[in-house]
Amino acid sequence: MSFPTVAVTLPEWVEALAPPGRVCVSDEEKMRLAVELSRQNVVHGTGGPFGAAVFERGSGRLVAAGVNSVVRLNNCTLHGEMVAFMMAQARLGCFSLKSAGTAYELVTSCEPCAMCLGATLWSGVSRVVCGATRDDALRLNFDEGPVFPESHAYLRARGIEIVLGVLRQEASAVLELYAARGGPIYNG
Amino acid sequence: MSFPTVAVTLPEWVEALAPPGRVCVSDEEKMRLAVELSRQNVVHGTGGPFGAAVFERGSGRLVAAGVNSVVRLNNCTLHGEMVAFMMAQARLGCFSLKSAGTAYELVTSCEPCAMCLGATLWSGVSRVVCGATRDDALRLNFDEGPVFPESHAYLRARGIEIVLGVLRQEASAVLELYAARGGPIYNG
Repeated sequence: MSFPTVAVTLPEWVEALAPPGRVCVSDEEKMRLAVELSRQNVVHGTGGPFGAAVFERGSGRLVAAGVNSVVRLNNCTLHGEMVAFMMAQARLGCFSLKSAGTAYELVTSCEPCAMCLGATLWSGVSRVVCGATRDDALRLNFDEGPVFPESHAYLRARGIEIVLGVLRQEASAVLELYAARGGPIYNG
Repeated sequence: MSFPTVAVTLPEWVEALAPPGRVCVSDEEKMRLAVELSRQNVVHGTGGPFGAAVFERGSGRLVAAGVNSVVRLNNCTLHGEMVAFMMAQARLGCFSLKSAGTAYELVTSCEPCAMCLGATLWSGVSRVVCGATRDDALRLNFDEGPVFPESHAYLRARGIEIVLGVLRQEASAVLELYAARGGPIYNG
């Protein structure tokens, strides 16, 4: 038996909500989109309560969206942030957003887990904006993995700005919605 | 413009070297395969000097192989370990190797970076065997991201056994080979 092609796709509903090129100006507007991606992922039953987006800094143009796709695509690596990075790099044709000639930022409905924080460093974004906190996720038994205060400091020391707690309540409410619906905690 | 399908594939040469089902008994034999995957990835010019494999514990049957594919596929998330996890889960049709009814282990030619260590936790493997060390990678200016002694302790506390330094010299020699050939340091 040979090795498969692993195809990473977004659910169909994403494009109407988050068409590439859509402009969001403020951090709050960008986060509102990330949170809406997380909520619609729960409502459509297409994955865990996490959404993310990559924007061009300055223009605020949306480059790519991502939603948690672990269960839908049977792939433990497909957190919302990872999917957003993959989509952004596929669209721009580069393996680092640093080489794309513009500055980019990640906006995510929940603080990145250990995997996504590592990927953030490799992605080439220069800024990360987060909604719900690690504690909000932990309250639902979503483990965030080995992320320590030094982890954020490590990224900051490499020039990545990290902003925490933007629209935290709205973002956290989607985690609660997922729990209330009995959604699977796939990495508890 | 719509979102693409991101297709994750292995280079064609991998299957002949690492056919699924191949049995490796000892840690050294498993590591020899991971190191050979890393070396052939350099020799074929298909990516960075990193190879990984997922085995069934007990039987030693190979489930999946992975090689660093960051530059080849323009995707910062495709380290060797990540590709091996994706291939294993696609072959077994599950998002956690814990749910596959057997115990699995990751064998990797170099200590996992922060991203891959996080993914190791989500993958469901119960054991990780590493060749070259973080310091070996750093010597070539490959950053490993925010991995601290507590990071390994975090995984161990969750029942994951971590074995370091198996065939370290052989694994490290492939990193040197890559540097000697002037291979790109894509996350330096």
